[in-house]
Amino acid sequence: MGTQETIRLLAANAFAERVGDTGLRTAQIDALGAEGARVHADLTARRGAGGLPFYDLPFDRGGLAASLAAAHRARETGDTLLVLGIGGSALGTTAVQRALNPGTHNLLAAPLRAGMRLFVCDNVDPEGFGEVLDLLEPGRTVVNVISKSGGTAETLAQFLAVRRWLVDALGPAGARRRIVVTTDPTRGYLRRVAQAEGLAALDVPPGVGGRFSVFTPVGLFPLAAVGVDVEALLDGACSLDAVSSLPGLWDNPAYLFAAIHVAFLRQGRNVHVLMPYSDGLRDVADWFRQLWAESLGKRRALDGTEVCVGPTPVKALGTTDQHSQVQLYVEGPQDKVITFVEVENLRRDIDLRADVPGGAEVEYLEGKTLGALLRAEKRATEAALTRAGRPNLTIRLPRISAHAVGQLLHLLQIATVFAGGLLGIDPLDQPGVELGKELTFGLLGRPGYEARAREVELLSTPDPRLTVPHL
Amino acid sequence: MGTQETIRLLAANAFAERVGDTGLRTAQIDALGAEGARVHADLTARRGAGGLPFYDLPFDRGGLAASLAAAHRARETGDTLLVLGIGGSALGTTAVQRALNPGTHNLLAAPLRAGMRLFVCDNVDPEGFGEVLDLLEPGRTVVNVISKSGGTAETLAQFLAVRRWLVDALGPAGARRRIVVTTDPTRGYLRRVAQAEGLAALDVPPGVGGRFSVFTPVGLFPLAAVGVDVEALLDGACSLDAVSSLPGLWDNPAYLFAAIHVAFLRQGRNVHVLMPYSDGLRDVADWFRQLWAESLGKRRALDGTEVCVGPTPVKALGTTDQHSQVQLYVEGPQDKVITFVEVENLRRDIDLRADVPGGAEVEYLEGKTLGALLRAEKRATEAALTRAGRPNLTIRLPRISAHAVGQLLHLLQIATVFAGGLLGIDPLDQPGVELGKELTFGLLGRPGYEARAREVELLSTPDPRLTVPHL
Repeated sequence: MGTQETIRLLAANAFAERVGDTGLRTAQIDALGAEGARVHADLTARRGAGGLPFYDLPFDRGGLAASLAAAHRARETGDTLLVLGIGGSALGTTAVQRALNPGTHNLLAAPLRAGMRLFVCDNVDPEGFGEVLDLLEPGRTVVNVISKSGGTAETLAQFLAVRRWLVDALGPAGARRRIVVTTDPTRGYLRRVAQAEGLAALDVPPGVGGRFSVFTPVGLFPLAAVGVDVEALLDGACSLDAVSSLPGLWDNPAYLFAAIHVAFLRQGRNVHVLMPYSDGLRDVADWFRQLWAESLGKRRALDGTEVCVGPTPVKALGTTDQHSQVQLYVEGPQDKVITFVEVENLRRDIDLRADVPGGAEVEYLEGKTLGALLRAEKRATEAALTRAGRPNLTIRLPRISAHAVGQLLHLLQIATVFAGGLLGIDPLDQPGVELGKELTFGLLGRPGYEARAREVELLSTPDPRLTVPHL
Repeated sequence: MGTQETIRLLAANAFAERVGDTGLRTAQIDALGAEGARVHADLTARRGAGGLPFYDLPFDRGGLAASLAAAHRARETGDTLLVLGIGGSALGTTAVQRALNPGTHNLLAAPLRAGMRLFVCDNVDPEGFGEVLDLLEPGRTVVNVISKSGGTAETLAQFLAVRRWLVDALGPAGARRRIVVTTDPTRGYLRRVAQAEGLAALDVPPGVGGRFSVFTPVGLFPLAAVGVDVEALLDGACSLDAVSSLPGLWDNPAYLFAAIHVAFLRQGRNVHVLMPYSDGLRDVADWFRQLWAESLGKRRALDGTEVCVGPTPVKALGTTDQHSQVQLYVEGPQDKVITFVEVENLRRDIDLRADVPGGAEVEYLEGKTLGALLRAEKRATEAALTRAGRPNLTIRLPRISAHAVGQLLHLLQIATVFAGGLLGIDPLDQPGVELGKELTFGLLGRPGYEARAREVELLSTPDPRLTVPHL
């Protein structure tokens, strides 16, 4: 890979020299250096001791081999893959598939598709879920049930429904042949079921949380099945290792991304927008939303003090959201940092001919391309924000390829744990969602959670006086 | 319509009695009463004088008749509708279609679909746009080009490309037969082209901005073409008029929604989340994002003072985002107001049988339904947020129907102009996006914008020292 083929962080527009007083001073990043060095040392030590396995997943090709073999079998078994999973079990697959296959993938005839059709069901709404089951044919479908713990309520409920749908159509043996479980190697309900029923099963390596699992079989199996070059995806992530292991904030794009966002967060910029100028990369912003929000949104610091910290990540899309969100970004409060993602070399372009009865509105487009318009709009929006004193960054991909997408995801993962370190919180846990799970169990009558049901009644029953129109 | 069939705002969890000190006091809303009365009088007067036509669009059936007739012709001409438009020209159609047709609409065989297939292209990325053109057949496609002004750069560029695609396949006459323009009744480039070429054309009534145009032919024509009962949609909006015309904050759900959000915004809650617990309603949150952000995100108050105000609307989806954003919502900073949208009566449900080798993880689901799980998770999340002192609201729909969706959209439109009034800004303009347009023209060499090109160079060229890895 030449230097041209590296993802880059363009940070000039975050700094006062460009953006004015609302920008950072480079000295502020310098001042974070000591803190950053401590975090770097800590991460490096923990990585070395095996405590941060996500760092080295791209180098571990065991999950790759198992995923490729399972994908090969899946493609022989059916032409449609139905993924049941939620959060980190779904978002990476959706993001990478959308980046590397056409948005019309599921609508294409089989010979035009790189691999299986893909349906990722990450909700339990019976309306949406039922629509998908109506569409699919059990005899042409392979089902991948993904839950790291093996006990995710939503995913198990989907599993019960889909298993029955398969058994009704194909009988128990036919159903078993079509289910692939991805879960903890030894523990949990799904692992037990896989063992008892002889289901195909893939491993989520211990110590890898859902939002850091895209480079495990959680992502690799479905992505291989739909025709993504998952080896190149991992190679891309590996190729980032050298630069993302550098200790200096000014040399390491992941660290610089994190340091800039933390510095701005400390100044009250609590909204962090990721805005790709690319249809293909739009769902990367959804994947990032989970990574950034769930990792950095924490009540307690590592020392136990209450901090209630956390930026709100926002998904946007250029040029589309210029006609939706940019008015707010340019004129609204100084509470945002905007990161564009741009692609230098498009995979295709469309020529424009202004061969319609005249008008200055279209003549300047004569001889241009849609790609040129897309790029011009990105640069113009960037310049308009900068002139309005709104700090912004750009992540530039040389092109959309499995290699570059691997780099992008890994950069953002490393940025996340580094930002967690700077904020003094644990980026790997999510204690705030436990109560909601227990309250759900209570409402549904799971033994042991009876008291929780009463709590929900108290806090979620409408108050007629505060309901409009009144009940 | 019985009282059961009314959309309702459930506001108890925004108040201190439920949520604790972080909630509002009902006295705070009372205190907004005088301000609210002034805004109500102003809106009522302007509506009466014809200055706020969006209020009465649902009652004006001229656009409906023209849209239904055009949809009838379109369905005789092809089986696929390609909408070219951006922002308000796209978001309403996408939201309502997704609510009222299955998410699998485009994948269904013709006899199973309520109407034409729908592709809404609201970006100029040649990758994504080219994929759609690759898929569609010119001879089976009707193209709806939508731009209120008739001069939107992105839409005109798409129009040039698609017109050529049609002409190459079908010749000029065949192409003309397949294009429907939706634009200003008399002015602008698209109207001139429609007149010169004899294209079918629909009107956007003067004075209706893009983000308030879903009840004009902008939304009505494509929605009718894909099989939505657009008359019921308008009837629903009309049915809200009585309650949303009431002057009192405690009687008018649109006003109460606005007043609560403005009161919280003044306390620093700058992130406003809309979180439907419904796959069908997910894209309503995207439509709301534009409405809320572009209307309320403003640099200047009506009196000219610089205020730089505006909440950041965030799209979320339950239960999905419980595994992505709720950790942040429960534990992160006190900077959010969360509005759930819930549906009382689902259009279908799926029974669960825990007929898989035992485990407490699934046994409590025996005899339940997916819909019961969805509802329990919403109530549990609501209760968990409330217990953590995080203010939240619920908009409750009796069911997802054209009628109820019409109510929902109209309620949010009225809430938006009322919030604009309370904030003292003009919710109908968007001055902050002009500069970006001019800078784009400059970069693309449109005569008269040469100086703008230099400005962009200055503000968007990477600085090698602040680019990592270095250039």
